[in-house]
Amino acid sequence: MSGHGYDGGRLNLPFTGICTFGKRPYVADWTQIDADVAILGAPFDAGTQWRAGARFGPRAVRDASTLFSFGHAGAYDHEDDATYLGEDVRIVDMGDADIVHTDTLQSHANIRAGVEAALAGGALPVVIGGDHSINIPCIEAFEGHAPFHVLQIDAHLDFVDERHGVTRGHGNPMRRASEKPWVSGLTQLGIRNVSSTAKEGYDDARARGSDILSVRQVRALGPEATAARLPKGAPVYITIDIDAFCPSIAPGTGTPSHGGFLYYDVLEILQKVAQNHQVVGIDLVEVAPDYDPTGSTSILAAQVLMNLLGFVFHARAQQG
Amino acid sequence: MSGHGYDGGRLNLPFTGICTFGKRPYVADWTQIDADVAILGAPFDAGTQWRAGARFGPRAVRDASTLFSFGHAGAYDHEDDATYLGEDVRIVDMGDADIVHTDTLQSHANIRAGVEAALAGGALPVVIGGDHSINIPCIEAFEGHAPFHVLQIDAHLDFVDERHGVTRGHGNPMRRASEKPWVSGLTQLGIRNVSSTAKEGYDDARARGSDILSVRQVRALGPEATAARLPKGAPVYITIDIDAFCPSIAPGTGTPSHGGFLYYDVLEILQKVAQNHQVVGIDLVEVAPDYDPTGSTSILAAQVLMNLLGFVFHARAQQG
Amino acid sequence: MSGHGYDGGRLNLPFTGICTFGKRPYVADWTQIDADVAILGAPFDAGTQWRAGARFGPRAVRDASTLFSFGHAGAYDHEDDATYLGEDVRIVDMGDADIVHTDTLQSHANIRAGVEAALAGGALPVVIGGDHSINIPCIEAFEGHAPFHVLQIDAHLDFVDERHGVTRGHGNPMRRASEKPWVSGLTQLGIRNVSSTAKEGYDDARARGSDILSVRQVRALGPEATAARLPKGAPVYITIDIDAFCPSIAPGTGTPSHGGFLYYDVLEILQKVAQNHQVVGIDLVEVAPDYDPTGSTSILAAQVLMNLLGFVFHARAQQG
Amino acid sequence: MSGHGYDGGRLNLPFTGICTFGKRPYVADWTQIDADVAILGAPFDAGTQWRAGARFGPRAVRDASTLFSFGHAGAYDHEDDATYLGEDVRIVDMGDADIVHTDTLQSHANIRAGVEAALAGGALPVVIGGDHSINIPCIEAFEGHAPFHVLQIDAHLDFVDERHGVTRGHGNPMRRASEKPWVSGLTQLGIRNVSSTAKEGYDDARARGSDILSVRQVRALGPEATAARLPKGAPVYITIDIDAFCPSIAPGTGTPSHGGFLYYDVLEILQKVAQNHQVVGIDLVEVAPDYDPTGSTSILAAQVLMNLLGFVFHARAQQG
Amino acid sequence: MSGHGYDGGRLNLPFTGICTFGKRPYVADWTQIDADVAILGAPFDAGTQWRAGARFGPRAVRDASTLFSFGHAGAYDHEDDATYLGEDVRIVDMGDADIVHTDTLQSHANIRAGVEAALAGGALPVVIGGDHSINIPCIEAFEGHAPFHVLQIDAHLDFVDERHGVTRGHGNPMRRASEKPWVSGLTQLGIRNVSSTAKEGYDDARARGSDILSVRQVRALGPEATAARLPKGAPVYITIDIDAFCPSIAPGTGTPSHGGFLYYDVLEILQKVAQNHQVVGIDLVEVAPDYDPTGSTSILAAQVLMNLLGFVFHARAQQG
Amino acid sequence: MSGHGYDGGRLNLPFTGICTFGKRPYVADWTQIDADVAILGAPFDAGTQWRAGARFGPRAVRDASTLFSFGHAGAYDHEDDATYLGEDVRIVDMGDADIVHTDTLQSHANIRAGVEAALAGGALPVVIGGDHSINIPCIEAFEGHAPFHVLQIDAHLDFVDERHGVTRGHGNPMRRASEKPWVSGLTQLGIRNVSSTAKEGYDDARARGSDILSVRQVRALGPEATAARLPKGAPVYITIDIDAFCPSIAPGTGTPSHGGFLYYDVLEILQKVAQNHQVVGIDLVEVAPDYDPTGSTSILAAQVLMNLLGFVFHARAQQG
Repeated sequence: MSGHGYDGGRLNLPFTGICTFGKRPYVADWTQIDADVAILGAPFDAGTQWRAGARFGPRAVRDASTLFSFGHAGAYDHEDDATYLGEDVRIVDMGDADIVHTDTLQSHANIRAGVEAALAGGALPVVIGGDHSINIPCIEAFEGHAPFHVLQIDAHLDFVDERHGVTRGHGNPMRRASEKPWVSGLTQLGIRNVSSTAKEGYDDARARGSDILSVRQVRALGPEATAARLPKGAPVYITIDIDAFCPSIAPGTGTPSHGGFLYYDVLEILQKVAQNHQVVGIDLVEVAPDYDPTGSTSILAAQVLMNLLGFVFHARAQQG
Repeated sequence: MSGHGYDGGRLNLPFTGICTFGKRPYVADWTQIDADVAILGAPFDAGTQWRAGARFGPRAVRDASTLFSFGHAGAYDHEDDATYLGEDVRIVDMGDADIVHTDTLQSHANIRAGVEAALAGGALPVVIGGDHSINIPCIEAFEGHAPFHVLQIDAHLDFVDERHGVTRGHGNPMRRASEKPWVSGLTQLGIRNVSSTAKEGYDDARARGSDILSVRQVRALGPEATAARLPKGAPVYITIDIDAFCPSIAPGTGTPSHGGFLYYDVLEILQKVAQNHQVVGIDLVEVAPDYDPTGSTSILAAQVLMNLLGFVFHARAQQG
Repeated sequence: MSGHGYDGGRLNLPFTGICTFGKRPYVADWTQIDADVAILGAPFDAGTQWRAGARFGPRAVRDASTLFSFGHAGAYDHEDDATYLGEDVRIVDMGDADIVHTDTLQSHANIRAGVEAALAGGALPVVIGGDHSINIPCIEAFEGHAPFHVLQIDAHLDFVDERHGVTRGHGNPMRRASEKPWVSGLTQLGIRNVSSTAKEGYDDARARGSDILSVRQVRALGPEATAARLPKGAPVYITIDIDAFCPSIAPGTGTPSHGGFLYYDVLEILQKVAQNHQVVGIDLVEVAPDYDPTGSTSILAAQVLMNLLGFVFHARAQQG
Repeated sequence: MSGHGYDGGRLNLPFTGICTFGKRPYVADWTQIDADVAILGAPFDAGTQWRAGARFGPRAVRDASTLFSFGHAGAYDHEDDATYLGEDVRIVDMGDADIVHTDTLQSHANIRAGVEAALAGGALPVVIGGDHSINIPCIEAFEGHAPFHVLQIDAHLDFVDERHGVTRGHGNPMRRASEKPWVSGLTQLGIRNVSSTAKEGYDDARARGSDILSVRQVRALGPEATAARLPKGAPVYITIDIDAFCPSIAPGTGTPSHGGFLYYDVLEILQKVAQNHQVVGIDLVEVAPDYDPTGSTSILAAQVLMNLLGFVFHARAQQG
Repeated sequence: MSGHGYDGGRLNLPFTGICTFGKRPYVADWTQIDADVAILGAPFDAGTQWRAGARFGPRAVRDASTLFSFGHAGAYDHEDDATYLGEDVRIVDMGDADIVHTDTLQSHANIRAGVEAALAGGALPVVIGGDHSINIPCIEAFEGHAPFHVLQIDAHLDFVDERHGVTRGHGNPMRRASEKPWVSGLTQLGIRNVSSTAKEGYDDARARGSDILSVRQVRALGPEATAARLPKGAPVYITIDIDAFCPSIAPGTGTPSHGGFLYYDVLEILQKVAQNHQVVGIDLVEVAPDYDPTGSTSILAAQVLMNLLGFVFHARAQQG
Repeated sequence: MSGHGYDGGRLNLPFTGICTFGKRPYVADWTQIDADVAILGAPFDAGTQWRAGARFGPRAVRDASTLFSFGHAGAYDHEDDATYLGEDVRIVDMGDADIVHTDTLQSHANIRAGVEAALAGGALPVVIGGDHSINIPCIEAFEGHAPFHVLQIDAHLDFVDERHGVTRGHGNPMRRASEKPWVSGLTQLGIRNVSSTAKEGYDDARARGSDILSVRQVRALGPEATAARLPKGAPVYITIDIDAFCPSIAPGTGTPSHGGFLYYDVLEILQKVAQNHQVVGIDLVEVAPDYDPTGSTSILAAQVLMNLLGFVFHARAQQG
């Protein structure tokens, strides 16, 4: 939220300035969105089954994102010989959806409204959770849109249908997504070990056409072949649960699971997917910053989002 | 949960053994409670408006309580020349009420069921939160019982009626209590500074007969005069929000508020109240242990509960 | 940075929204300030002699300030029976002064420019440090203004003239202030124990008319008599080093010093001073949030600033 | 320690309930053990040479183990297409061995008694340390049993004979094991870098037949070939020092050593060993939870123990 | 360990330099001590009954002590108008006694040898623990010296005789001291709440002439009257358990106990005692720095030691 | 700083003793250096652009280095079958360069003086930062020496020429080095992602002959081929920014960057380089210990320095 560029008279070191995402402009009036990307915080964590704290995810990711916002325009990557996210990519920060404690339905409705506003403004919606249940209203906001494929990067399948009446907790979103007519299928990567989804959840998911791969299976395939398993040409919604990553780099999350992805595992899949698919929406969830005093988790989340947005708009620019 | 007493062959240092409250017996079958005190965990924190994490309060307080459980019977206090909580006081741990994420009503119902079970067993219910909303089902569990006065020790008035449909969040419990026919009145101590209760909440509370005192007002009165403001002879339910205390000794909580009570401020009031009133129920809420890496908050909570229970049963023994 | 008021359709819980101070509007263009209060961050910490980290003070204080920003208008204080900081007090957040690493003079110049802009806009400048050296440009920004008295609340005298060439470190600001023609005198409260100021600094300060009181001396006097030592009717600039407070409530600072003020010690002095003096400027420095994982220090800083601003504008309203 | 299964009326989320291992039943009377697995805590850490704190290992691992104890029976692993640790595997928690501070011999004797009790009850003893010296009484408890091979997974050789009179510190256990007639040999995996064992310790170990492999050597071999180096058909006692793992996932330990195993490195070896050998005893040591505020270390320990027990009983079931 | 004084060409900021106590010279050869004060580390913590970690006390207190070591000679205190610990007070750092893990007797013997060396060198021994059991060899080192009184400042009575064979744990030192012919009596201040000493310990202590006062009793008396209870003119050995202090300022300790002393409570007693008694030895124990990420506890310990040494040598100079 | 060797009568566990590097002797008089290696602390962190705190790097690395200093002579590595850093390698600790807060030039001059003193004493200078700007005076100290190649291991290129007047911040050192006639070239390994160096910095670096490789490029080459890219036979100065490593093992740094090196990646390159080149100087920078409560980062830094020094002097011994 500070003018960029050294010419503007500011050195604008990362530790200065108000923490919007990447220090990009804040748009309080959601009817006035005119941007390529609209960032929305969804600080809801009542859907968690172990540690809460993801309500502070949006703030932490915004704070960490400023580390990637030196005063010079765009980020040059020498490996790709590309400058990502220059001035031409217009990113705005919508702030947060309103959360109503003790009321899951209303909180989810408010998140849905935010995503709908982003879509109405023609922007790519990027939602920062909150727990994974916030994916439910994100997907619901696409009601009436053209069908898309969901790419989930996660430790847990999140495919519980209903248990003790719970249908909108953080163990349910992929099941909810699979029920939507506008979701054409799911690719679920990183799934491993014990979770709230029991065997029948896996059976159900597979019955509905899910492609489920563990971390080791993804590594055995490699990023290219993994990305190639997505339906060719399908638009893609990407939902990243930070616990897909190894707790070594993402300990600040509600339900850490060992054996997760390292940074390049995910980066290279995202790069391939962004090159070959239209990305229609993104959420990144389950950053619970207070469980990581080093800040690594928030930095990872911000870095991955920056990378992914860079890939998406680099591909768009390439495709002219 | 280990045999006590050095004669039993164990030194039983605090850091050993399973963490029930005070290492007292666990009673899984709530129809079989036969005890003077029944400890119930209520790990619900979806009612919070700032930091969550009180769901780990019961575990942390139980863990800290073992520090007060050396192998010798009872705790000798040289200031009072009394040995508190000897073998004659039968304390059991009921474990936790079942919590259903995203479902406040069901979670509260389960807490109420636990308190009802404790009461049915003739035990003094002692509930460890969880956020302050868990006081709502605790009070509801006394439906049909003789009226009692509520002593609240807290930074915040918690007297919001309804806002955006929320009636069972952690800003509402004292309002809810005041509505119950079996609650004869409230004394609210430690109230200070900004909170979710606006001016109209204070007006409402006073209109319903609440006696509201700030930390400075309590100190000016002294513990004896403060305790004397409770209606003489009334049975008392005590609800302690750990944020009543100064963040210096209780930083591990959701909404810390500076200027709170120090240890003896509260201890001496509790001692007086226990001497002069029948205590019918206790809850201690809002311990969010992960925000206090020193462990001081949990130790404070356990120490205050041990002290209070000691006072209650010492008074009972005196009164024979 | 979100619309206030429940009527506006948002519950606006503290943990939601972009972190400007108190969620008040951000003014990027410093020539357009039209407000009663202008908040400026001064994230400079190269003046520290022990722990750095105060560069993150502005962010942390802003974040904590949202805890005091529930959706209802103003904060009702039942002890004072007053509602502070209602809609009538127009507060804006200017963001941060630009900092140039390795260049103290340029960084200080940028801070001065910010304070000058606030003054030019007719607003009360409130600067959040950064280390105490940032007080130097803050005072310099008043060049040409009417003389005022400086009230320093601090553990350390900060009266070093020059040592090894250093004149603008965090041990020098009060000396620098005392040299300014527009500073009529200093009252230095809370000073105690060892620091970078040696005996000759105390002698110099007293020779220039400083009134130096320790924590115990202030407590012996009481808040009223302490406040009465300021020159009657003088406009006052207030500089608060968070290490004036006891490390029990403010451990997140560069050079903690035991035996500091507790919350009410300072609160009551500030309330008296605000009632009896025009407050022309405020800075609060040395919050190094990463040294306090509980967040208590940042919350204290935000709470004290909110309290002080409430007192200032309540007094203004009274005086009509 | 709560009834399992959703049919039992509880959702039983991980964060609820008393922390026995996996929420399995507590058996206070060690003469009444009737189970497949008996968990024993051995909270002794006076054998450490750098950071202590492993005395809180048993509590932390029990707490973390509840994350793997959702209400549904058993844990389904989609990679193995197997459900591990269903109701048929009877696990009990014995609580902790009594520890006598300042008295290593007595503390060790009490641990030995616990393991003997588990063995007498026909259960597989699983001991959670405590520092690695607690392996000494664990091995001693097998006196009179059939010979077995020891598989050590560790950063350090722990093969010091005696130094300054110390024979039962955490640098001595493998030497002590190698001296027992009922220990047929050792495989020592993960050994790297500097430790309390000097060159002569390595020479001694090799002279006694130890097979010593570093992390890089194990990786070069792969899990299958590594597992194949154990003597075919030999019963195996597995001792896992958590510092065998990389500090990235196990920083909460006394003497971290960089370059350690990652999760799958160890998992796959354990799976192979469990398939091809009878496992007669297990200990997992050196979890010092207070050095890891993220909780990753305790979660890793619990996860590895759950995995290993799953493999052991899956193999037993396969072999009928 | 750096030359002091700005004339020496160094600014010598606190954060620079090797961490000996106060950056004073290190004396490796204990037969060559020629100083007024000799600092000895006693990093033994196997005597603890709750949290260990006091083994890192000496390092942490040394580190914190450098905060009180600005380049100028001595520390000017404006309240006392005195400069303490100038160049005339010769302080040396002996490093640490050798610790033998698992061997309490040998470790204690090594500590005793260190104190004997300090005494032989004519220096005031100042021992930094380690847990409170290290007071046992400290007192034993005075065997053959003239009798002295022991002033204990502590939360716990530490008067257990023997339990399960333990006689040299951290619950035993005052009992051990009371048995020594060269200890003429004990004053025990700050004692409160539950501990490893049961009622019979209090009876024993009183029978042997101990004067036991709680925090509240000390405060009611005031520092002067409290200090006056020590036998007039008796030489005094001062043992300070950091847990005598309130956990608000000393959370980094093994067994925190709420309701402890604040800084001035202890400071003023120490100042009085130093004025009226010969101080023959000092130990400060139970700083477990890793439980206090803020560093407050270590800073308190260093500050109190600096203050106390200042008082002792100021009194000596006065009495010159 | 304690006598080594068990024969010397001390067990000398790592947690005992004064924290010089490896407990080696402290040399206060820099004109009296007579050693193979001279360790110098450079606790300057005013050059940082995100988190400060590297001023405590030297203390933390020294403290961690004692973990690698068991009483036995040298460290035996079974993988290499070599004992490293035996008594024959004479290492001394020079303490820290004097730092003048707010004065970058003077602080850098003091660091340069320290390195010059080490070189004058014939020792290999090993400088522990501080931020990476301290490399500037380190390289300057070699003025007049024979040309050498610089091997940088880092996440960031640090090749900014000048921006807003800053030429000696932590984004500038490699540019400064490249300007020196006595620097023959640079190999820059680990460079990745966004930093303060924009595209033109890369172009400039390559134009001046830099060989820039990312982590993935290094891994694709392998350690041998990577090391072979250095100019054959050239003397080498090695500068290691700890953020070259993955945040999973080095979170305690100012500007963490995901996707970094793991331990063996760097170890094996260093081993190769040490075998094939004369190493003329070393610095290791950007350890900010307070951001890593686990201590892993400091341990990594100490371990890598120990390893590298071992390789250097092993190679020298081989080459006789």
